[in-house]
Amino acid sequence: MGGVAEVVVATTVLESKEWYLAAYVPENVPTSDHLKLRTTKVSLEHNLIPDQHVVLQTLLISVDPYLRSMMTGRVGDLYLPPLQLDKVITGFGLGKVVKSKNSNLKEGDIVVNPYCPVAEYCVVPLDFLQKIDPTPNIPLPNYMSSLGVPGFTAWVAIELIWNPKPESNVFISAAAGGVGMFAGQLAKLKGCRVVGSTGSDEKVQLLKEEFGYDDAFNYWKESDFDVALAKYFPNGIDYYLDNVGGKMLESVLNNVNKGAHIAISGMMSQYNTIPSEREGVNNLMNMIGKEVKMEGFLCGTYLNRYGEFAQQMEVYLKEEKIIAKHKINEGIESFLESFVSLFSSSNLGKVIVQVAK
Amino acid sequence: MGGVAEVVVATTVLESKEWYLAAYVPENVPTSDHLKLRTTKVSLEHNLIPDQHVVLQTLLISVDPYLRSMMTGRVGDLYLPPLQLDKVITGFGLGKVVKSKNSNLKEGDIVVNPYCPVAEYCVVPLDFLQKIDPTPNIPLPNYMSSLGVPGFTAWVAIELIWNPKPESNVFISAAAGGVGMFAGQLAKLKGCRVVGSTGSDEKVQLLKEEFGYDDAFNYWKESDFDVALAKYFPNGIDYYLDNVGGKMLESVLNNVNKGAHIAISGMMSQYNTIPSEREGVNNLMNMIGKEVKMEGFLCGTYLNRYGEFAQQMEVYLKEEKIIAKHKINEGIESFLESFVSLFSSSNLGKVIVQVAK
Repeated sequence: MGGVAEVVVATTVLESKEWYLAAYVPENVPTSDHLKLRTTKVSLEHNLIPDQHVVLQTLLISVDPYLRSMMTGRVGDLYLPPLQLDKVITGFGLGKVVKSKNSNLKEGDIVVNPYCPVAEYCVVPLDFLQKIDPTPNIPLPNYMSSLGVPGFTAWVAIELIWNPKPESNVFISAAAGGVGMFAGQLAKLKGCRVVGSTGSDEKVQLLKEEFGYDDAFNYWKESDFDVALAKYFPNGIDYYLDNVGGKMLESVLNNVNKGAHIAISGMMSQYNTIPSEREGVNNLMNMIGKEVKMEGFLCGTYLNRYGEFAQQMEVYLKEEKIIAKHKINEGIESFLESFVSLFSSSNLGKVIVQVAK
Repeated sequence: MGGVAEVVVATTVLESKEWYLAAYVPENVPTSDHLKLRTTKVSLEHNLIPDQHVVLQTLLISVDPYLRSMMTGRVGDLYLPPLQLDKVITGFGLGKVVKSKNSNLKEGDIVVNPYCPVAEYCVVPLDFLQKIDPTPNIPLPNYMSSLGVPGFTAWVAIELIWNPKPESNVFISAAAGGVGMFAGQLAKLKGCRVVGSTGSDEKVQLLKEEFGYDDAFNYWKESDFDVALAKYFPNGIDYYLDNVGGKMLESVLNNVNKGAHIAISGMMSQYNTIPSEREGVNNLMNMIGKEVKMEGFLCGTYLNRYGEFAQQMEVYLKEEKIIAKHKINEGIESFLESFVSLFSSSNLGKVIVQVAK
């Protein structure tokens, strides 16, 4: 039992396809010139220090708009750490442990991975992994939506930043998107009157019939947002969750009530534009007389409240008080197409890439 | 003693010059085509219902930028009640009681009048009058500045909206103006590092040598505000009191620290422009990644805190911890010129019209 050479490990090497950034994308949507797929090898033993790393097989990857701001090659925009050229892209994902020397995580366990490479397999540090116990009530894609970044972002806005009174008038843009879908439902559970804007008639119907929005409109069909908002908010807007920025934000500022509170979680209309060509908001002066508060936020700042959120959201999901809608694309190859689709109003629900079942 | 005709009052009628709005001013600074002076008559007895009205002689009138937004003929802008055509203009003033049937206010008393007609004499309701006891320590013009709208506005921002930690980096625009002058001194008393922007080299000197600003710059001499703010704030901006709006606000958003708090008390650079031609702020997206809070406010909302403010400010004035600088123009005739001067960077200190001594 004493010799050092006694145990010989047959190193298993897995082939793993991964997406990497081949060129920065200063403006417009990325193409296959910018995001490319390649095959790498992941060793099941390599770097596997006990209690520090595990090998994961990626099951699901959340496709989120914020990633766009990390591809520009500029510091700024959302001030998130820029992606590096030739390095694998990292997002939010769900994986299965395929190799572990850690006593708390065994092979077959399912974990949420907030720094998930967009790759089929990966060796990752344990620090940020969160083990989940799948239940029949909560299908796995929910960990990328209702219980993931979009759901948590929505909850931070509604619960922590606003905590609105019943009957408040709430407006949500990109309302059928990842964040909007949950924000509207959470605001309805608070007793608010909720109206959403979205990019297709099909999604208008979805908002009203499935997510319980009081009203909704297709912004492509409105020639004047000022007029549209005045029509949908005869009593003015008390709360606005901004996911788009630009002209919609400007029109909201023309329709706010005294003391209105605007939370900005994203500005999708501006992500594909270089800073000097972004739409200016020229009526910020309205904020004085109407005493408007506007604040940008990142859900990561509120991670200490994630547990409380998850507990509440799980109850809502089990009681079917909140529903999640997913657009699941199969195979890691679909990542680029999935990402580009975020900017085309074409999706119903949260976009997820299913890398493996 | 019984006959109704027994007491015959010799009605005294005073001639009173007053400024009225002859035409709306949709853009640019007002001229003598818009603001006109006329002579009216004020009866010392007319309408003088006991416990409801008194007759005042106006001593001082505060000349404030917010009045500009009430002259446009538009609803909106600051959402303050628009001035009516042919009606006397109303501001914030100080008056002496010349006739009273009220037991609490006797002739000769000095009162602050928040709804003061820009007129030599007026009959006003008692409701909002506040009697003051002049002391040698606090000259009367202070009731239009340090203890008036500008001082209270500055206090609301620094004390109630921010309450900044010592060492915080504070930027104030229109720093030598009515609000800015007190805001900077109040922030210094909190232990902050304070930098101001202003419109002349003379005022830069005033800010640094008299108001105790750590640094100051003349914005006319800066070709690029981004560069200027990066230079004056090597550690970034934590708090910004916005009195101007437009390009300066945009550059602040390029130089903010995480969690920065912007309070908007005015937007002087935009008041003389019609809404469609106002400068857009095109980098609000920075608010997300930097988690910036921005809020507009009106000091009137915080009137319940005025007493607390006045007590604190009086102590500061007596101890000379805060100094007030006034630009006093003589005679009610000077009102138009005084008002226009607000928009030309030409004043040192708070602009006041002295109607009578």
